[in-house]
Formats: sequence, structure tokens, C-alpha cells
Amino acid sequence: MIETACDIEIQWGDCDPAGIVFFPNYFAWFDRATWQMFARAGLAIDGLLRDKRCDALPLTHAEADFFAPCRPGDVLHLTSRVDTIESRRIHIAHEARRGDVVVLKGRETRAWVVAAPERPSGLRGADIPADIVARLSAAPTRPR
Amino acid sequence: MIETACDIEIQWGDCDPAGIVFFPNYFAWFDRATWQMFARAGLAIDGLLRDKRCDALPLTHAEADFFAPCRPGDVLHLTSRVDTIESRRIHIAHEARRGDVVVLKGRETRAWVVAAPERPSGLRGADIPADIVARLSAAPTRPR
Amino acid sequence: MIETACDIEIQWGDCDPAGIVFFPNYFAWFDRATWQMFARAGLAIDGLLRDKRCDALPLTHAEADFFAPCRPGDVLHLTSRVDTIESRRIHIAHEARRGDVVVLKGRETRAWVVAAPERPSGLRGADIPADIVARLSAAPTRPR
Amino acid sequence: MIETACDIEIQWGDCDPAGIVFFPNYFAWFDRATWQMFARAGLAIDGLLRDKRCDALPLTHAEADFFAPCRPGDVLHLTSRVDTIESRRIHIAHEARRGDVVVLKGRETRAWVVAAPERPSGLRGADIPADIVARLSAAPTRPR
Repeated sequence: MIETACDIEIQWGDCDPAGIVFFPNYFAWFDRATWQMFARAGLAIDGLLRDKRCDALPLTHAEADFFAPCRPGDVLHLTSRVDTIESRRIHIAHEARRGDVVVLKGRETRAWVVAAPERPSGLRGADIPADIVARLSAAPTRPR
Repeated sequence: MIETACDIEIQWGDCDPAGIVFFPNYFAWFDRATWQMFARAGLAIDGLLRDKRCDALPLTHAEADFFAPCRPGDVLHLTSRVDTIESRRIHIAHEARRGDVVVLKGRETRAWVVAAPERPSGLRGADIPADIVARLSAAPTRPR
Repeated sequence: MIETACDIEIQWGDCDPAGIVFFPNYFAWFDRATWQMFARAGLAIDGLLRDKRCDALPLTHAEADFFAPCRPGDVLHLTSRVDTIESRRIHIAHEARRGDVVVLKGRETRAWVVAAPERPSGLRGADIPADIVARLSAAPTRPR
Repeated sequence: MIETACDIEIQWGDCDPAGIVFFPNYFAWFDRATWQMFARAGLAIDGLLRDKRCDALPLTHAEADFFAPCRPGDVLHLTSRVDTIESRRIHIAHEARRGDVVVLKGRETRAWVVAAPERPSGLRGADIPADIVARLSAAPTRPR
């Protein structure tokens, strides 16, 4: 399965009055990491949408365990990987370190969905195309 | 245990290019709901900090299951409650409905921490004071 | 010209380590207020886009003067109004009070744009339709 | 006066349902650039606060002119510089390019403030110390 890594420098505006990261931001960084991983597999989200491969990759589940607070100026090394692929779901795992310390671990599940104008949600689940599965199942690459 | 509820109207800026809520925002709304619940128990966060009862209430875990996408203009009815209280941890459950449809469920765990200048993190876990436990254990109130 | 007003309760997560509102959030509240004003004029953004009246209402200018810091729990009363309408631009003015104190004033200019697939930006400016101008020029209403 | 530059890659979650950057994010990037510039002058915000040089650097004014919409995957080259320094105010200018195209220009004014527990705001304006002025007035450096 593919893997990726990126560095996140904690900004002043990412933190709350206790001086530590306002936790929803960690999920935004998970999202950034997931799209970066897809892009490196040749599956940039804007291309996926433009080519009508899918119409969104909404989350069905997201979670994180937080082991240490992070503050402005901290640099997190966030590694992300595709964990498992089901017929219509992709499971992704994230782990962030600050130096040698694991500060958080996260998991997310995304659904492959296509446009369904007849439905109230406008979307319906669909099988992940075989070529997409193949790209996401490729040997790990850890650029940067 | 105490309970609370609030209405969240989804804003244009809460949504991503797929036209649905960018999921980290749901966690920000959980945070809002948790503080509102604490405030209604007489435990407004700014007061807790000013009175040195605690120095932060950082999350040790957060998760959500998403059942339906939400779009600008949708109004979510978010109900939140203290689920269980451990000696140093508070578990909170959230559920959001749009009309009759449950669109997501969430859970979070928060640690009671006080200042610990001698530690790298500046914080250390502490037992939740009995009067705080009593307030959070009060009979449910669901104003609004 | 139409006017509107809404109350914004400052959340913990809206504030930075200095304990005051992280200023980009004020602009997000301006955006919320503008869409609320449009909606009350019968011009909800999702309807405008769905009916292909326009394809976006991007800002060409935004500014704010900040007179006093705001903190978690503060309630801002934000009044907004259409100031002037040019052939392709709408100027909007915002003012926020906390009790009797004006805490900030803002201004924004939005361009009426339609899809232009032939352009790199995908968008081009267009004249604001007369019925839209009429709705935005209506006598002030200040619900809520 | 000092200058700095950084690259901002537009993320999926930075954009709205029109597929373009939700404009308050530009102001968050201005904030990031300002702190980076201060840090490179030896004035990292956390150090300034910890050493009680100031207690916040709140904005008194912020504005931006937007010339072109930006989309996920765009990389903005943001250059920032201290423009002028008054006794209690610092004026900063920002400019973002995407390739050769200037996509936005911004300006912000920040006030030097120290703790004033006797005041409702908790803060009062103060003269910027001479050594701080000297550091911010140094010859331009444009690392990265």
C-alpha cells in the first residue's frame, strides 16, 4: 500500500487560548496528507473529480488519539498510509511525531461515491475502480 | 449526567469544493457543544482557567461516524451529553440530526490537566475535583 | 438597500493563544452575514448557483478595522448592509458591537461572475441582473 | 525593513463549494507569514510573550485586494515585508503570486500591547522597544 509523509509546522492561529493546537486542525492535516498521498499515486482529487472518476471521497469515520499537546513552532512529521481497501471503502492510517515522540495517531475511512441526482444526498456509493485500487496498492513510496 | 443541545446552521465557508461540510468542522462544533454544556453546568471554560481549577481540557481521543453529507443551509440539531466520568477523564457523546435523520455521531475524551512548568508539555494530569464531578453528573437539562 | 443582523457567540476555538479572536475568523463571520442577508432577500447562494444566475460571488476586496479584542463567551451583534451596487460589483458594510461598544467595522466588495470554461480562471465578470439589483436595493429589513 | 517569503500550497479544505479559496484563509496565511518574518528577525511570537516583551500583537487593520481566484493544488508564493513602523504600530505588506500572476495584495497593521489587568480588555498599547524596532528595520532577508 502507498505511504507518504509531510511536515506540518504548527502556526499561532492553529492554537487555542490554552496555547495548544485546537484539535480539529489535526483532522484538517489528515485531509491534507490523504490528498497528498493520492496525488503522489497519480490520483489528485481535482483530476478525479474532473474526469468523473468519483464525485467526492467523503469520510464515513475519522478518529484520533492524542498523546501530547503541540504548540506554535512545533514541527510535526506526519506519516500516512493506505491501510486496507474494501470494495467501496478506503482505510487510511496517520501518525504524527515531534522529534522521537509520537504525539498522535489517527484513522479515517473514506467512501467512493458518485453523483446520484435522484437521491436527496446527491451522492451514492460505488465500487472503487480496479485501476484506482491498483494505484493505491502500490509499493510504499515515502518522498520528502 | 448533564446533556445539552444546540442548532448549527451549515455555512458556505464550512463546505468544500464537493459542496459538503469539510469534516474537521464537525469536530469544532463538538468542541463548541462541549463548552456550552460545561457553561450550563456552571463550568464555563474561561472561569475554570481563571480560577485555576484546571489549565486546559485537552482531548485524548475524538472520533465520529458520518452517515450523510451536509450542505450549506442545512440545520443540524446537535445533542451532547456527558457519558461517563473517570478519575481523570471525561467521556462525552454527540449526535447530530437533520430533521429526523441522524447524520453523525461522535465521541470525545478529555483529560483534566493542570500546569506543570517542570514538564516539557507544561501540563500534567490531575484528579477531577469532586464538585466538578457533581456538577457534570447532575440530572440532564436540555435547554433551547 | 437591504440590511441584516445576527449574533455571533465567540467560541474557545475561535481564539488564539493570546486568548483573543484569531482575526481571520471575523472575515468568516462577514461571509456568513453576507449570505444570510442575500438569503433574506430571496437570493440564497445555493439557489443562485443552482439556477445558474451566477457561478460564484468572489471577493475583490475585504477589509476591517479592529477597535477592541474579543474573547470566548463574548457575543457580537453584527449588522450588515448593502452599501452600493455597481454594474458588476456589490459593496457591503459590516459593523460589530459588544453591548454598546463598536468592536470592529468591515467592508467587502464582491464581483458577479459566471462560468467561462475558456478562461484559465474558469470565471468571468458579468453585469448583475436587474432583478437581483432590485432585491438587494429593497428597503432595509432587520429581522432577528 | 525585513522581508520574507514562503510558499503556500492551496489545500482542498481551504476551498469553498465554488472550488476557490474561502477568502478568510488568505488572512490566516498573512498571519503565518508575519510570524515567520518576526521569527527570522529573532522575534518568535512565543519568545516575545514568554519574555514579557509584549502580551499580544493584535491587528488594528487588515485588508486585501483579490485579483484572481485560487484553487486546490495552486502554489502561492507569498512575499511579506515590514512597510513602516510607528511608535506603537507596525505596518506590514503582503503580495502573493501564482507563477508570474499577482493574485492578491494585502496590508495589515498591528499594535504593540502589554498586559493591563485593570482594563476591561486586559491589554493596553505601549511603545515598541528600540531593540525590536532595530530588528524589524534590518536589511531585507529573503530566505527560502
